[in-house]
Amino acid sequence: MPRYRLTIEYAGTGLVGWQRQPVGVSVQGALETAIAKFCGDQVTVHGAGRTDAGVHALAQVAHVDLTREHPPDTIRGALNHHLRPAPVSVLAVAAAAFDFDARRSAIGRVYRYRILNRRPPAMLDRNRVWHVAPPLDLAAMQAGARHLIGRHDFSTFRDSLCQAKTPVKTLDAARVWREGEEVRLEFAARSFLHRQVRSMTGSLAQVGLGRWSAADLAAALEARDRAACGPVAPADGLCLVSVAY
Amino acid sequence: MPRYRLTIEYAGTGLVGWQRQPVGVSVQGALETAIAKFCGDQVTVHGAGRTDAGVHALAQVAHVDLTREHPPDTIRGALNHHLRPAPVSVLAVAAAAFDFDARRSAIGRVYRYRILNRRPPAMLDRNRVWHVAPPLDLAAMQAGARHLIGRHDFSTFRDSLCQAKTPVKTLDAARVWREGEEVRLEFAARSFLHRQVRSMTGSLAQVGLGRWSAADLAAALEARDRAACGPVAPADGLCLVSVAY
Repeated sequence: MPRYRLTIEYAGTGLVGWQRQPVGVSVQGALETAIAKFCGDQVTVHGAGRTDAGVHALAQVAHVDLTREHPPDTIRGALNHHLRPAPVSVLAVAAAAFDFDARRSAIGRVYRYRILNRRPPAMLDRNRVWHVAPPLDLAAMQAGARHLIGRHDFSTFRDSLCQAKTPVKTLDAARVWREGEEVRLEFAARSFLHRQVRSMTGSLAQVGLGRWSAADLAAALEARDRAACGPVAPADGLCLVSVAY
Repeated sequence: MPRYRLTIEYAGTGLVGWQRQPVGVSVQGALETAIAKFCGDQVTVHGAGRTDAGVHALAQVAHVDLTREHPPDTIRGALNHHLRPAPVSVLAVAAAAFDFDARRSAIGRVYRYRILNRRPPAMLDRNRVWHVAPPLDLAAMQAGARHLIGRHDFSTFRDSLCQAKTPVKTLDAARVWREGEEVRLEFAARSFLHRQVRSMTGSLAQVGLGRWSAADLAAALEARDRAACGPVAPADGLCLVSVAY
């Protein structure tokens, strides 16, 4: 069976997340339904990462096996037609090797988190940013983020529902910068624990608000205890930017 | 009566536009209702420009007279509280001179138009861009835009409902550039005719698609005839960026 690699953009607002659920629209479910409408195949679409409800993606990657070969551009056009009105768009389709696995073959993932840091609420970027009204201390957040880089036991920043075999991960990059009225965070790693980015971002926001010092964040990491985590940042601000192979 | 100047951001999607209408949520109506809830005043809010249904604003400007003085930050906080859930946010409030008039005192307006120029439809920026799938010829659009700059009779690019006394306007700037997958257009003028930006953008898109030459656009302008205008670009891609005084 020919295998295809899909690159997918979606707006997570109103979706139940990547994964198929008994109720609600998921990215996986919307893609599988669109494929069935296109060629009749009942398939499972395998994604590189299971984003939560409300989380966005600029370029999620997935693979799927179809019964017959089709020109990649035909698949893309047909899926985008049948995906409507779900907020999911197939950016690219390419023939993939039989052993390409969107999740297991991935060697890096990049997530971006957008905080709108001003007094008035967000309008044009509503549901795309987390609105934090008090001014954030950028230098303090940058100092805090440096503690997270490297190989650590990230139990503090791991959701209780996380199914990973080990809480030890290597965070390759944790950047924090200001862009206009926004504070943006970007995290790169081979893979992440469940809710790790939102958990780290929520704790870094505590540092930015002056409620924690950068040393408090380091101590929270050292605690290896979910109870030491700050309030988890909301889904709206989070976006899966890219997956590397 | 103390006069205040308001700077306002809004997402036009789902709104009937700036101006109060018998049915539907308008920016003006939402602001007037919020003011009544804040201080009981039944006022008229005067905007710098009457944006159409679906058109956005990063920084619309308006003025309003209140019965009593209030600290500007108190007004801003109260209005943003009472505006919910309308997609309207008051960015700034400042005391204004008694003769400040948001519309008449304005000496310049800047509008930006965003075209998402790729095959797959928009998801993260749905309702914020116009999706044009075939590749646009940027150089041709730039050549076309140069014909529009300066003082002209813009009758071709004027909606039949336009109430301006004269179709003669001076377009100070018309920039077209590529930014990632987008083609962006920015127009600056002291003031614009009704639907002028969307009319010019729609005709420039004809040039970008190769259906018109830049010379055809110049001829359309010269015709001074609404019938010579290309299809008007949709509201979603348009945003009032700034008003200068």
